[in-house]
Amino acid sequence: MKAVVLASGGLDSTVTAALARAEGFALYLLTLHYGQRHALEVERARQIGRWLNAHEHLVLPLDLQAIGGSALTGNIPVPKDRSVTEREKEIPVTYVPARNIIFLSLALAYAEVREASAIFFGANIRDYSGYPDCRPEFLQAFTAMAQLGTKMGVEGENVTIRAPLLFMTKGEIIQKGQSLNVPFELTHSCYDPTSTGVACGRCDSCLIRKAGFKEAGLTDPIPYAI
Amino acid sequence: MKAVVLASGGLDSTVTAALARAEGFALYLLTLHYGQRHALEVERARQIGRWLNAHEHLVLPLDLQAIGGSALTGNIPVPKDRSVTEREKEIPVTYVPARNIIFLSLALAYAEVREASAIFFGANIRDYSGYPDCRPEFLQAFTAMAQLGTKMGVEGENVTIRAPLLFMTKGEIIQKGQSLNVPFELTHSCYDPTSTGVACGRCDSCLIRKAGFKEAGLTDPIPYAI
Repeated sequence: MKAVVLASGGLDSTVTAALARAEGFALYLLTLHYGQRHALEVERARQIGRWLNAHEHLVLPLDLQAIGGSALTGNIPVPKDRSVTEREKEIPVTYVPARNIIFLSLALAYAEVREASAIFFGANIRDYSGYPDCRPEFLQAFTAMAQLGTKMGVEGENVTIRAPLLFMTKGEIIQKGQSLNVPFELTHSCYDPTSTGVACGRCDSCLIRKAGFKEAGLTDPIPYAI
Repeated sequence: MKAVVLASGGLDSTVTAALARAEGFALYLLTLHYGQRHALEVERARQIGRWLNAHEHLVLPLDLQAIGGSALTGNIPVPKDRSVTEREKEIPVTYVPARNIIFLSLALAYAEVREASAIFFGANIRDYSGYPDCRPEFLQAFTAMAQLGTKMGVEGENVTIRAPLLFMTKGEIIQKGQSLNVPFELTHSCYDPTSTGVACGRCDSCLIRKAGFKEAGLTDPIPYAI
């Protein structure tokens, strides 16, 4: 039983991978080095892959900076200190155009070649920042498209897209990770770390993570600049 | 009026781009250097981009060899001298898992950032080799998924996926190209060229191209090894 897991080095994808492992899947991790501001997460993803004892870990470079259009891949500043209301008002500039579509497409190719029956993906619609490509209706449409557009789909061997964290709060995700002994100290969430890799503590991702640990009643082991 | 065009350097994508230009679109070409056996087509795509007077031409490297699973990106031999019946029997080993899904996803990101209203794509279901990701039902499902998974889709600015060659025979495509003065001598179709870049004349793609020129009553200007 094989699963491809999109592993970014972040907290959600690490808990997702740990869940897939707990279900007995052999893990085929896929990490994209896409020109993200926080490329440190790629190194963290490698360390997490070793902790997970992944069967294979593919790290693919893909220059999304050449396409641009996001605070995560370009010169647009990362928003800081936003309230929950501000965060939920609109799709933020940290949205990377079609990123999850691209990543899931690559995961699909990888699953097709390795004959994996599932793709695990850390998407979440609660406590999140309004990304359209994290919604259940998107995942459903992607699955339908994948079935029609691949050899395995045409031959009736469908890959299932699993997003086990989809409806969980950040606190619940952290509690789940805790129960699976996820090494939170290796996970990286900050969109805009300092030059030495310390989390800023003020971007949407840091704020959501901090609130999640509080909700879970646990201590976040990573240092923050603020 | 802007269009992203997936430009492989092949005949179909070149005719498609010429059609988009004839409709008055400013062209944003996207070429993937994906580790294909016939990487010569990338250089041809650049030359074609200059002929088209493209507004922008993005050439992205993406290592699909790391994923493998295809005669076009790995060590599986390219089939030769197959009859039409043999070609249409099953999906061939030159199928690259999820390739068009990946390429369209990247085109979608590019279209979203450049605010292009259309993506032109040289897919074709006639005279073809049974690729699932060239079928109209796939393109329809991709469009639905793209609408749900992108910021522009959520905001109601939908990108249209145009495959103007979808139902044409190869002969009709070549006649259309001729009427648009497409420089056929720059286009590359062969899956398995010689080390000096000469078309093998025996792979499915060469056989389909040769039959197409015959059907169109035109002379193919490129040399063949056979």
